[in-house]
Amino acid sequence: MARIVMKFGGTSVADLDRIRNVAGRVKREVDAGHEVAVVVSAMAGATNQLVAWCQSLSALHDAREYDTVVATGEQVTSGLLAIALQDIGVEARSWQGWQIPIETDGAHGRARIDAIEGAELLRRMRELRQVAVVTGFQGLGPDHRVTTLGRGGSDTSAVALAAALKAERCDIYTDVEGVFTTDPRIVAKARKLDRIAYEEMLELASVGAKVLQTRSVELAMKEKVRVQVRSSFSDAPGTLVVDEDEIVEKEMVAGIAYSRDEAKITLRRVPDRPGVAAAVFGPLAAAGINVDMIVQNLAADGTTDITFTVGKADLPRTEATLKEIRQAIGYGEIAADRDVAKLSVVGVGMRSHAGVASTMFRTLAERGINIQVISTSEIKVSVLIGAEYTELAVRALHSAYGLDGA
Amino acid sequence: MARIVMKFGGTSVADLDRIRNVAGRVKREVDAGHEVAVVVSAMAGATNQLVAWCQSLSALHDAREYDTVVATGEQVTSGLLAIALQDIGVEARSWQGWQIPIETDGAHGRARIDAIEGAELLRRMRELRQVAVVTGFQGLGPDHRVTTLGRGGSDTSAVALAAALKAERCDIYTDVEGVFTTDPRIVAKARKLDRIAYEEMLELASVGAKVLQTRSVELAMKEKVRVQVRSSFSDAPGTLVVDEDEIVEKEMVAGIAYSRDEAKITLRRVPDRPGVAAAVFGPLAAAGINVDMIVQNLAADGTTDITFTVGKADLPRTEATLKEIRQAIGYGEIAADRDVAKLSVVGVGMRSHAGVASTMFRTLAERGINIQVISTSEIKVSVLIGAEYTELAVRALHSAYGLDGA
Repeated sequence: MARIVMKFGGTSVADLDRIRNVAGRVKREVDAGHEVAVVVSAMAGATNQLVAWCQSLSALHDAREYDTVVATGEQVTSGLLAIALQDIGVEARSWQGWQIPIETDGAHGRARIDAIEGAELLRRMRELRQVAVVTGFQGLGPDHRVTTLGRGGSDTSAVALAAALKAERCDIYTDVEGVFTTDPRIVAKARKLDRIAYEEMLELASVGAKVLQTRSVELAMKEKVRVQVRSSFSDAPGTLVVDEDEIVEKEMVAGIAYSRDEAKITLRRVPDRPGVAAAVFGPLAAAGINVDMIVQNLAADGTTDITFTVGKADLPRTEATLKEIRQAIGYGEIAADRDVAKLSVVGVGMRSHAGVASTMFRTLAERGINIQVISTSEIKVSVLIGAEYTELAVRALHSAYGLDGA
Repeated sequence: MARIVMKFGGTSVADLDRIRNVAGRVKREVDAGHEVAVVVSAMAGATNQLVAWCQSLSALHDAREYDTVVATGEQVTSGLLAIALQDIGVEARSWQGWQIPIETDGAHGRARIDAIEGAELLRRMRELRQVAVVTGFQGLGPDHRVTTLGRGGSDTSAVALAAALKAERCDIYTDVEGVFTTDPRIVAKARKLDRIAYEEMLELASVGAKVLQTRSVELAMKEKVRVQVRSSFSDAPGTLVVDEDEIVEKEMVAGIAYSRDEAKITLRRVPDRPGVAAAVFGPLAAAGINVDMIVQNLAADGTTDITFTVGKADLPRTEATLKEIRQAIGYGEIAADRDVAKLSVVGVGMRSHAGVASTMFRTLAERGINIQVISTSEIKVSVLIGAEYTELAVRALHSAYGLDGA
């Protein structure tokens, strides 16, 4: 007998049949003797509709009213799932964020969870064998109004609830079978991982593997919540996201991720003097622009080229900011390139295995793929390449690191 | 400067354009210097969809979960209207039933309002000139869960809020221009009434004029709330529902209503002995069946015929109940007739004018319409006739009482 949290995303509760399917899955866990709390998202499409209404009425809508409107999606699902569970003989009741409460800060539209009062839920799970059906994505702010956590927030709700209830596992049910070594739409031989370390998942999530929301992985790592990613449409075991110590056979590389969401900017002929990097990146930070990879090359004439990447959506604001400071810095010109992709190989095994980076560089060189920028962390190597080489590069690296499955 | 409550039904907030229209109407009242609270229903169709989902998942669904699901309709509208108001420069915020709170009893799905804590709303209306956008139809039960008031409950919410805020008027915006002397779809010459007394409105509402929910009129009468029924699609003044004393020129008849929702039952050859009526109607009351008109005729053979009406929906249960008690009572047979209509003429003027009933009987007799059952109250005369005569009878009576307009 264990205590578990099960989380079902929007596609898993998209219509009444799927809600019935979810109820059946929950019943199996209850019948197996487990104490179960369920976290639900809005029915697929519902949130988009509600967001569109708010935006259509006012481009600059009040985030508190937006939260009031958008949070109804999860409320509907929670009530419907409770009804579906009762209909098959499972004790259940729905819980809204404000009823528990799930206390958040006051940042409407992107709130962070401060505390969850789980005592009453626990009592009912134990004494009444009652399943708690909890709305994901929402909470109660200090202003006594409904808050939402931002897109993908239901994953975070589930992990936070699992921590509050001291659950043994948090199962995230989604429309994929688990975490793969890379995107199966690009590499047919991609393998599902049985286990992955929190830090690896974090790096993969932040570079474009959209299985879990980054914040939920950070929270799971901090609170030591064992997370399982699995499909709500099959019975296959999923991927367990756990502490590094629980993974005995560490592969050198766990996975390969890619992202086409970044753009490259090069400032040419920047005067090579102390403080020039701060003069460039200070104003960008002040403008709220997130800079990712950075490289600087010294030229023969005593000037330097500074190359870096930003999110594509931030490109216009980045160029505008750089033009404003051109006089003060005295660079030659700005060149922007949107046709780039960032490739990352990730694995905690890198800490003990040498040669991960050199394998990457050699493999790409053999395919004639030019590396434009390189950045590394303790468990990750990322390179920027021309976007048209993305698939070719991902396939080559997947083979080179021995990740290809049957 | 006045304090007013404005209530908008589902058709008035059916889409974003209509919500913008409502916002414009509210702004006009604010610009005129009034303190305004708005009560909103769900967007037309939304509640039906939510109800259908609950019913589809389980015929015997938990009323508490039903309330959780169905109350989201009003929550969405309240947030959207607040956004629309802010967009045109009107200070506004949405309020859910649980936030105010609107306290109700624990009868989920058909709760009654116990109390409304209006102090904070009032403070904001006064000090911040902030419009309170309040969800109709819902409240907070003693179990700290969302309750709903039953169909048409938003009218009751509006009147209760007007009473709590001591508002000078409660304007009910709907898709008709006001209260008419009879159904304009039947009588082209039906006139809109400028004023109508609470008691008249109550009688008309209970016999099929679907403009206002009966409970809301009862509450308005009890709390002396001046209610105005008017159209959200025109600027014409509506009908003021007020105390009888405020109506100087009392017409003998204010309006004529009809209902095809009842069925007639006749028990033939019932033994004529004391207590037999109680033996018939006691078991029906115990089964929760509402009996309306009753008439008893003595036959020459010492038995009696008992005729009465029940709601058409209750007919099968009524017949079943009567069959169960046949042995005990010893009646001859049951005859049921669904092809009947109830016609009612209503007016507080009846108290001082004689001859209302005789005008009715003579008018119907002249058209060859047979009266099957008669019932009267202080301000109402009702008759049961064959359903096929409904339109003919309504038109004839409308002329006979001098109600025809230009």
